Parts: sequence; structure tokens; C-alpha cells
Amino acid sequence: MKTRITEMLGTKYPIVQGGMMWVGRAELASAVSNAGGFGILTALTQPTPEHLVKEIERCRGMTDKPFGVNLTILPTAKPPPYEAYLDAALDNGIKVLETAGNNPKEFIAKAKARGVKIVHKCTAVRHALSAERNGVDAISIDGMECAGHPGEDQIGCLMLFAIAAKKVKIPLIASGGIADGATMAAAFALGIEGVNMGTRFCATQEAPIHDDIKQLLVKASERDTTLIFRTLHNTGRVLKTVVSEEVVAIENRPGGCEFKDIQHLVSGAKGREALETGDATKGLIWAGQSVGLIDDIPTCAELIERMVGECRELLEQAGRRAA
Amino acid sequence: MKTRITEMLGTKYPIVQGGMMWVGRAELASAVSNAGGFGILTALTQPTPEHLVKEIERCRGMTDKPFGVNLTILPTAKPPPYEAYLDAALDNGIKVLETAGNNPKEFIAKAKARGVKIVHKCTAVRHALSAERNGVDAISIDGMECAGHPGEDQIGCLMLFAIAAKKVKIPLIASGGIADGATMAAAFALGIEGVNMGTRFCATQEAPIHDDIKQLLVKASERDTTLIFRTLHNTGRVLKTVVSEEVVAIENRPGGCEFKDIQHLVSGAKGREALETGDATKGLIWAGQSVGLIDDIPTCAELIERMVGECRELLEQAGRRAA
Repeated sequence: MKTRITEMLGTKYPIVQGGMMWVGRAELASAVSNAGGFGILTALTQPTPEHLVKEIERCRGMTDKPFGVNLTILPTAKPPPYEAYLDAALDNGIKVLETAGNNPKEFIAKAKARGVKIVHKCTAVRHALSAERNGVDAISIDGMECAGHPGEDQIGCLMLFAIAAKKVKIPLIASGGIADGATMAAAFALGIEGVNMGTRFCATQEAPIHDDIKQLLVKASERDTTLIFRTLHNTGRVLKTVVSEEVVAIENRPGGCEFKDIQHLVSGAKGREALETGDATKGLIWAGQSVGLIDDIPTCAELIERMVGECRELLEQAGRRAA
Repeated sequence: MKTRITEMLGTKYPIVQGGMMWVGRAELASAVSNAGGFGILTALTQPTPEHLVKEIERCRGMTDKPFGVNLTILPTAKPPPYEAYLDAALDNGIKVLETAGNNPKEFIAKAKARGVKIVHKCTAVRHALSAERNGVDAISIDGMECAGHPGEDQIGCLMLFAIAAKKVKIPLIASGGIADGATMAAAFALGIEGVNMGTRFCATQEAPIHDDIKQLLVKASERDTTLIFRTLHNTGRVLKTVVSEEVVAIENRPGGCEFKDIQHLVSGAKGREALETGDATKGLIWAGQSVGLIDDIPTCAELIERMVGECRELLEQAGRRAA
């Protein structure tokens, strides 16, 4: 396959494993890159920038293919040392950064001065156009089906991808709702040049997640995710569990909800505990509606080869029907 | 183009103009059918079954191509004479019915005994599978981006189409979010054999709607629709207007909302008045997120030919990139 995304990433296929907290580690990133996709290490999953340096080295020991680093920049009371994480990536041979959240122009300038490409994640067309003006190299555009933060507009993936493809000139990566060759073929048909997968890569052999959680993803249907934090205008999509139901119940209480009311349920440490112990009652588990397309736990290589085959076959069939 | 949908409908293209209250009249249905698509008259837009007979005759005077009739069956206190509307269609040469809402087995049996095909609209995969078991001939599957009633699950079109395409064996029509050749190509790439458009056909020369309302659709972005009736578990997607904002405000009042609280704002007669006078303050205007893809008011023939060309071109490009 050949698109502006494969050229930018230096990969065989335009399939990206998006940065995910606790999951974006060397085991998964190297497996995706070895399979012809583009693996991404999540910077903030590492406790310090020095740990990120070691994780990059560890990943390089597991693959000779290119991989990237995700840096998600959120406004918080006690921000992590973002610039030190950025430097850890730039100083250790990373050629592509996935950014999300705020995208400070000085970070873009610093990365570009080193010849590093920036793929910026957005959940709205207007944000994509703004990032394009600010000089990012590609946009990973995230529709409402996606896991994690789909933004506040609730625009479906089909619609968001189609409108972005009409308006954005730099290459696009479809994110949210992509989990197989069919959804990849749909993104291609819209004129989009790459796909990003999060939830689907969590249900692979190499994902560093307890098998019981992978089995939950296999069992879940498209109706088994829910939106949290809508009342806080920081909407997130998670797997429906006793924890998420409790969060939603508190958010729906008459009189409204503040962050402190749910803080005890939503800490990242608890989400990590759920992923590591396999006990879904421990914390929130991020998952997209694409769980409805996940029926097995293949290796990353099996998954990617199957997707590529199915994508080609469906596009051929579609071309014949449209003729 | 040739799919099981074109064969079933007897059309040049698998492009269906879905039944819409007040809009699904002979002017629009005949224009769509003349352009190679499949136009649909909305039964309940006619005040009596006798008026439907006359509308079918009027449409037949405007096109020699096939067209259908939509019959939406909803549980209400004072139901219209559904069976008499059904008979009006069956006795007057209609070969394809679009059904929505409840789908009584006896209506299916009656239609099938006359050799009439049934395309049933669903908003959930489980409902599609149930309709398939009940013997309908095709499913028009409606994702959350759609105008009107997207159901309560809030599953995005991309996801719903992809999962339905994997599980449903009878032919599928993608509905919701389709407005151009790109979104049509995406549906084809998912293995879906036809597309349904509502909002897009409202913004055509032939749609029997005041031009000021068409201009509102052209101006609106994908962020200019809103969901109403969520609190009543009868979710509907409409254009954001002063009327819809008032409905949402009442629905969000602490203490909840009953239908009687908003009844004065939502009557169908008021929606009709808005469409006919062009005054959007009169009543609710149904519209899908696909308004974000609508930039002009072409004839149905211009629209369909442009879509077909764009769809073919995008599928060719996608095939080359995926090779």
C-alpha cells in the first residue's frame, strides 16, 4: 500500500496504533511495527522522561522498523514535564510524534527544526484546520465512536471523516470505529490515507493487558460502551462496567456533578490496575464502539494481514458494483 | 451500477430517497426516479388513503420509472388507518414498500402475497436481524448521524453499517450520513449495496420545501443539528433552531420532562408550516449531520450524476492506494 501516510511513516501499511495510556508500551508498539504498521509508545505511561528514554531503547531492541511516541498535552494543576518528555523523544531518534490535546506552537517548531513529523489528533474539523495552519504534518481525526476523548460535538466517524477529507489538505488518518478491513476500506473510499486503531490493538496477543480484559472486549457488542464526563464537558468513552455505571449515576444526579464527586472512581492508577489485574471492577477501561467488530485475539501480524486482504477484496468488489 | 438493491428496485443506481413527512410527495419522488434513483412517497403525508391513491397517480404522471411508498407504523393513541394506506399502495401498482417503526407480520404477509418487496428501516443490528427473520427483503439501516429517529443506542453510522454488513444476509441500504459520492463509496466499501438519503434530497430544486429552509441546510455545518426527545426515549435529530433550543431547554429542566410539557412546540402541523413558509421559528425541522456536506441546491439529476461520478473515482483511487 502506498499513500502519503506510508511515505511519512516509512511503513508498509498506513495502519497506526494510537497512543494509549498504560497500553502503548514496547511490547505492543514493536509488534505493530514488525507487522508493517506503525507502533506508538505513550510518553506519559512512563513515570519520568528518563523512563521514556529506556522504553524507546527497549522498543528498538524489539524491532528495526520505525515507531513513534505519543505526547498528550492536557491542562492540569500539576503538569508533567512535557518539554522533557518531548526532548527524550527528539534526542533518541524518534522521527514521528503523535500529539493530542493542546499543541503548543513552540513544541511544533522544536520538533520540525529536528526534521520530526507531527501527527496531531483532533476531534473536530475546525481543530484539524487550525492544526494544519499551525504546521502539523498530518491529522488523526477522531469521531464519536472512538475510545477515550471523542470531544463534545458528537459527530459520527463517517460524517467527520467525510467532511475532514473535503476540507483538510494535509494527509488524514481515520481514528475511531476502525477495527477491520471493511472499516479501513471505508476510510480509503472517503479519500483518507491511513487508519488509527486503539481498541482493536488492545485485543491482540501482544497488548500488555490482562487476558480477562481482552476477553471482555471480545464479548462486548457495539452497545457496551458508554459516555462519561459529559457533564464536565470532557466527554470520554469507556466500556460499560460497574465502575462506569457508578460514574454515570453520579453525573446524572439532580443538581449536577463536579469532578471531586467522581474523582475516587476515575483515577488513572485504578484504570491501570483494572488492565493489569483483569479485574474490571477496579477502574475505568477506555473502549470504542468498535468493540462490536472484535471477535478474537489475534497477533498483530495476523490482524494486520487479515485487514489488508479484506480491505483490498472489499474495494475490488465495491469497484465492480459501482462500475 | 449493479447490486441486489438495483435489481430489487429496478433502478439504474442504488440510491433511495427515504420517506419523509411532508417532503415525500410526487414532485420529489418522481424527480429522484427520473434521475435513476428510487423515489418514495410518504403515505402519512397524505391526509387519507384516498389522497395517497391520487398522489400515486400524480407521481405516475410525472415518471415512468419505478417508485415506492413509505409506511411508518408508530404506536399512538389514535392510529391512522394503517391497513387502508397499505391497501392503497398494494392496489395501485406499488412494487416496493419502505416500512419503519413496527412491522406487523400480517402486513408483511399481505405485501409478500402480492409480490411486493419490503425495505424495512432499522436503527439497530438486532432489529435488522429480527426483521430479516420476519421475512423483509432488504434493510435500510440508520445510524446516529441520521435525521429523524436514530434510535436510543447512539451507534455511529460507520460502526452500525460495518456490523450490519457482517451480520445481515439480505441486502442493506446505508441510511444516515450519506450525502455525496464519498459517503456512498464508503458504504460500498463496507459491502453495502445501496444508500438512502433524506436531508440531502431536501436540498434539491425539486424538494417541495420553501427555499429559505433549503438555504438553512446549505448554511448549516455538521454541528448544527441537535437531539430532542432523549428524555422521552424517542430520540430525534433536528436542525438547531430557536424551536429546538426551547425543546431541549424544557427537556433539561431539573425534575424531568413529559410529552405534554413540549407538545405545543413539536406538532407535525408546525413542522409542516416551517417547511412551507420558510419560517424556521414555526416548528421543528428534521435534519441529519450530513448537512455538513451540503453546499448547494442542485436538481436531483445533477446531484445523482455527480455522486455516481465521484463514487466511482474515489473507489478507483482507493483501490490504487490499497494495491
